[in-house]
Amino acid sequence: MNFQIAVIPGDGIGPEIINEAIKVLETIGKKYHHHFHFQKLLAGGCAIDKVGTCLPDETLDLCKKSDSILLGAVGGPKWDTLPGEQRPEKALLRLRKELNLFANLRPALLFPQLKDACPLKKEIVGNGIDICVVRELTGGIYFGEKGRKSSDIMGEIAYDVESYSVSEIKRIAKIAFEIAGKRKKKVTSVDKANVLESSKLWRSVVEEIANDYPDITLHHMYIDNASMQLIRDPKQFDVIVTSNMFGDILSDEASIITGSIGMLPSASLGNSTLGMYEPIHGSAPDIAGKNKANPIATILSAAMMLRYSFNLNKEAQAIEDAVTKVLKQGYRTPDLIHTEMQLVSTKEMGEQIIKNI
Amino acid sequence: MNFQIAVIPGDGIGPEIINEAIKVLETIGKKYHHHFHFQKLLAGGCAIDKVGTCLPDETLDLCKKSDSILLGAVGGPKWDTLPGEQRPEKALLRLRKELNLFANLRPALLFPQLKDACPLKKEIVGNGIDICVVRELTGGIYFGEKGRKSSDIMGEIAYDVESYSVSEIKRIAKIAFEIAGKRKKKVTSVDKANVLESSKLWRSVVEEIANDYPDITLHHMYIDNASMQLIRDPKQFDVIVTSNMFGDILSDEASIITGSIGMLPSASLGNSTLGMYEPIHGSAPDIAGKNKANPIATILSAAMMLRYSFNLNKEAQAIEDAVTKVLKQGYRTPDLIHTEMQLVSTKEMGEQIIKNI
Ligand SMILES: CC(C)[C@H](C(=O)O)[C@@H](O)C(=O)O
Ligand SMILES: CC(C)[C@H](C(=O)O)[C@@H](O)C(=O)O
Repeated sequence: MNFQIAVIPGDGIGPEIINEAIKVLETIGKKYHHHFHFQKLLAGGCAIDKVGTCLPDETLDLCKKSDSILLGAVGGPKWDTLPGEQRPEKALLRLRKELNLFANLRPALLFPQLKDACPLKKEIVGNGIDICVVRELTGGIYFGEKGRKSSDIMGEIAYDVESYSVSEIKRIAKIAFEIAGKRKKKVTSVDKANVLESSKLWRSVVEEIANDYPDITLHHMYIDNASMQLIRDPKQFDVIVTSNMFGDILSDEASIITGSIGMLPSASLGNSTLGMYEPIHGSAPDIAGKNKANPIATILSAAMMLRYSFNLNKEAQAIEDAVTKVLKQGYRTPDLIHTEMQLVSTKEMGEQIIKNI
Repeated sequence: MNFQIAVIPGDGIGPEIINEAIKVLETIGKKYHHHFHFQKLLAGGCAIDKVGTCLPDETLDLCKKSDSILLGAVGGPKWDTLPGEQRPEKALLRLRKELNLFANLRPALLFPQLKDACPLKKEIVGNGIDICVVRELTGGIYFGEKGRKSSDIMGEIAYDVESYSVSEIKRIAKIAFEIAGKRKKKVTSVDKANVLESSKLWRSVVEEIANDYPDITLHHMYIDNASMQLIRDPKQFDVIVTSNMFGDILSDEASIITGSIGMLPSASLGNSTLGMYEPIHGSAPDIAGKNKANPIATILSAAMMLRYSFNLNKEAQAIEDAVTKVLKQGYRTPDLIHTEMQLVSTKEMGEQIIKNI
């Protein structure tokens, strides 16, 4: 089969980790007889530097026409002083919105080989952590009306509107229940329904959808409590579904409790098979260009792409198995290094994974 | 000296823990020759049951007239199905707003004697965690406009407005810098300035205030990163200042990483000396009435009251020292129990602390 993949290397370590993921995909292509066509596109800080805008029209057009998008990372201190509309992050937000990628899947998995990197005590981790955060990605306070007003008494006022509609909540809730059906059949919906009107609507719509999934257990949890429970007892969670803002916070928290932020992929999906795949971590400017970054999160994002956008499950599994083997063999990039392990560079890690496919 | 203290026992374990705090304050009164007058007032779920409203006018009036307020906890599953405006939590929100208690101080301290209860690994905790979260408490999305709209295409829409004015940000920032001045001289301001307009204003105003405190270091951090950093390296924080919503999340997260949610007090302050003092934990309906709850968070809240509202520093210190001694002696309520410790009830814990004053 033929697949057109839009590739956005982005900034910082983005280009290095993307290169390894491309090589892995090429290996899969050869072995399983698929043709992956890669088209590298500009977005993020490097696009600002080269063409003056973080998301050139051409990039957006070609992304829309491709079968899926693989993204490294965007942003960095160099562009942090630019006004909001001109920042590299805006490229991400526009891509999500324009492509209607409303469902962000962020699996937080503690790899048994990496237990030592987990910041939590052994008793808490037990046999492992395996949570899938399903974050709403095109609504809420990220995309609501925002602006400034002046006031005589209070000085300038800035505001952002959090808002959710029944249809937005329905479609993300459905995805969470579908995913839970293939996992441990438990959904925890996180909101702040004791304070927010949008959370009250969220809670009632999620409950309505739950009726269509009688074999899935639904729990509701307030965001403040969820941020504690993730640390106190992460094993209680299977699928977490929540708003854009709460999902941003909880998915980062969930990823760090696995201790392996350099390992975790993500998928952003919409109604079609077109999806955007990227590592959870950022552009890590401090180690950029040093061949030190861990490419596994991006390589696993490529595996998610094979599974969710191309329906190539066997091929996705082949990548995931190769990663597991390499970890078992003791290869570690600097972010993962512990005693008696074999320190490798970005490229060496990519090569080891390819060897194992 | 004479002090009038409004006491709101509230729901669940509230009355039990409040009783111990009152006994501790009476002991302090006797020893240091102060007269504390306690007036017990109705608020929360029990007020709904008795008089049909979570915050009777009389309670609000008497709170306004008192020198300070000591609160146990409000809420419970019994009232969870009531509509938002009628829930026990609304009593808390109205008290904060009507008394203009805009600054919520939540110290997250790892007691050396309780290191075993900390969910984080020893390497991460090192010599201890000592963070003070300064949460804005009368603004933001908690008190912005909220409501419902209907839409033909999307179904019903619910919204909440996050908004902050320059003057609201200024006054909370000042408090954070003042507190940092008495601590490790480091303020971390947490926002989401890469997405929210209100966060951009927040960041610029905090920077402006920082100019008046040249000996304090200011860092900015995004909320998603902060929720990770608290787990990855909590020792990097001294004072965290943030919005009402982000503060709700981060203060709960900070408290659980100390492992001693039953130990942590809080103070809500405004422009006068009138403050509201309460434990960070909730009403714990599952153990209510069983003489099992840990009264220390409430007792330490009473100590904060002596210090912040009454300027009785020596007396506050006497309570804190007594708590430390009792922990050293090995007394533990069930939430804290570990090997070779002496299990005590709510009342016995109160008595032990009193013995040590
Ligand atoms: C870069 C930023 C705008 C983005 C977000 O908040 O969504 C990032 O934190 C993420 O989670 O993908
Ligand atoms: C009960 C609830 C409304 C309250 C809040 O969100 O402020 C609580 O979580 C707190 O932190 O005091």
